[in-house]
Amino acid sequence: MQLIDGNQTAKDIKAEIKQQVEGIIARGGKQPHLAAILVGHDGGSESYVAYKIKDCEAVGFKSSLIRFEDDVTETELLAKIEELNNDDDVDGFIVQLPLPRHIPENNILEAINYKKDVDGFHPVNVGRMVIGLPAFVSATPYGIVELIKRYGIETSGKNCVVVGRSQIVGRPMSVLMSQKEMNATVTVAHSRTKNLKEVCANADILICALGSPEFIKANMVKEGAVVIDVGTTRVPSQETKSGFRLKGDVLFDEVAPKCSYITPVPGGVGPMTRVSLLQNTLLAATKEIYS
Amino acid sequence: MQLIDGNQTAKDIKAEIKQQVEGIIARGGKQPHLAAILVGHDGGSESYVAYKIKDCEAVGFKSSLIRFEDDVTETELLAKIEELNNDDDVDGFIVQLPLPRHIPENNILEAINYKKDVDGFHPVNVGRMVIGLPAFVSATPYGIVELIKRYGIETSGKNCVVVGRSQIVGRPMSVLMSQKEMNATVTVAHSRTKNLKEVCANADILICALGSPEFIKANMVKEGAVVIDVGTTRVPSQETKSGFRLKGDVLFDEVAPKCSYITPVPGGVGPMTRVSLLQNTLLAATKEIYS
Repeated sequence: MQLIDGNQTAKDIKAEIKQQVEGIIARGGKQPHLAAILVGHDGGSESYVAYKIKDCEAVGFKSSLIRFEDDVTETELLAKIEELNNDDDVDGFIVQLPLPRHIPENNILEAINYKKDVDGFHPVNVGRMVIGLPAFVSATPYGIVELIKRYGIETSGKNCVVVGRSQIVGRPMSVLMSQKEMNATVTVAHSRTKNLKEVCANADILICALGSPEFIKANMVKEGAVVIDVGTTRVPSQETKSGFRLKGDVLFDEVAPKCSYITPVPGGVGPMTRVSLLQNTLLAATKEIYS
Repeated sequence: MQLIDGNQTAKDIKAEIKQQVEGIIARGGKQPHLAAILVGHDGGSESYVAYKIKDCEAVGFKSSLIRFEDDVTETELLAKIEELNNDDDVDGFIVQLPLPRHIPENNILEAINYKKDVDGFHPVNVGRMVIGLPAFVSATPYGIVELIKRYGIETSGKNCVVVGRSQIVGRPMSVLMSQKEMNATVTVAHSRTKNLKEVCANADILICALGSPEFIKANMVKEGAVVIDVGTTRVPSQETKSGFRLKGDVLFDEVAPKCSYITPVPGGVGPMTRVSLLQNTLLAATKEIYS
């Protein structure tokens, strides 16, 4: 069993990005610039955005944080998005989700110029990814593909089961795994799947994105399988200072001995998700996807 | 075994559309209007477009055929698209594919206003369909979903195998079948799939979109399965006046007795594909998807 080290891989990628940015600056180019819109003061959102800003600093990106209070109107938010769409200094930007209930998220996401949509949530990016055209791929699927590639995991002709069909993880993951670059035979399982145990136990590559802590037991995993655990659920814990710890969808201690490769939680997919946003921002700055 | 009669279902839907159009006209509304751009004189394209025009007449739509010669430039084509995008009388339009090699198809498809993209090929429509937002769904998947619904075929929790991952059939079909409306557990199989026989034989619902005549044999089909045959390959025949006949992906005579439901070729998915374009045009005219 080999542990897939997301922390180390993310660190490697950040070093590569930093080097590329230094090259751009040395050639007289513009510093890549990520902007983030944060509405309200949700604790989770605050800390996610803080990480993103910190990550930008670490690789030499410029970053901007734009704050709105919870009572911001849709019109105000759309005006700011229009401003960022037209600001040549901003290469990419994100609107941290969730938004307050009075603001329809899809209207906001579709207002972002897809060429600056480094979260990859705009329908044009989703559609182009599905069609197989260059596109910004959302962070978690992008990060998982990077892990699979960098660990040299064979995917062609393999049975891949993706548990979960969310729009930001399960669905794009299943599409990417079954496209020609990866060539896996992909099954999407979900809450309505019958015989989930058998479906999972048939997987050479099992990607779990349920958000149900330790749901995947050893009897649901094939001997020698590759297991990618996307779940990160906070559970109360007396062992940590914060009073909680992160648990994956996989009962790690029981499942790991059966696997050829497995991602831990934390330290697997999570750090890769963070680094994907940096990769997309660099792709936006260098115009590698859209000119 | 029940035969799924695509001809009859398409006829029913056309009658429904005709009635709706009569209602619109009676209320003083505008006649729905489909325009088609045809480049060159490819025999297949000529006859497909002729069918589309004829179908429009049958349901009371206005139709326009815009022809260009093979040597049309991309600029000329884009200018015409822009004109149709801005023509309030045109509710929806299509550009018949394939285009001559010197014209990049994706540039053309992306230039169509997605609100008039009744073929459902624009990335916005593909992306919105994947995200689960209202969208124009491309003709063949739309037609298959209609057949499944109108025949009352249970899909929730069923194992559905889609053989083929094309952008216009296999891929969207697999997404639609696994979304909440259908709730099937979907596997996408393709040319690189190992043990294709076993994968197919595990399907409660088998959707074949390979384009390989009579490839699916009885030993690849589960007893009681629903089989949807999307394949339509022209093979030479001495029995027909035209000198060819259409064959599906399924060896019908051998497979049919095992099925609970099966679509024939011709007369199954084909007529539904034709009628889907009319349905999308009506949805465009009535602004049910985009206002």
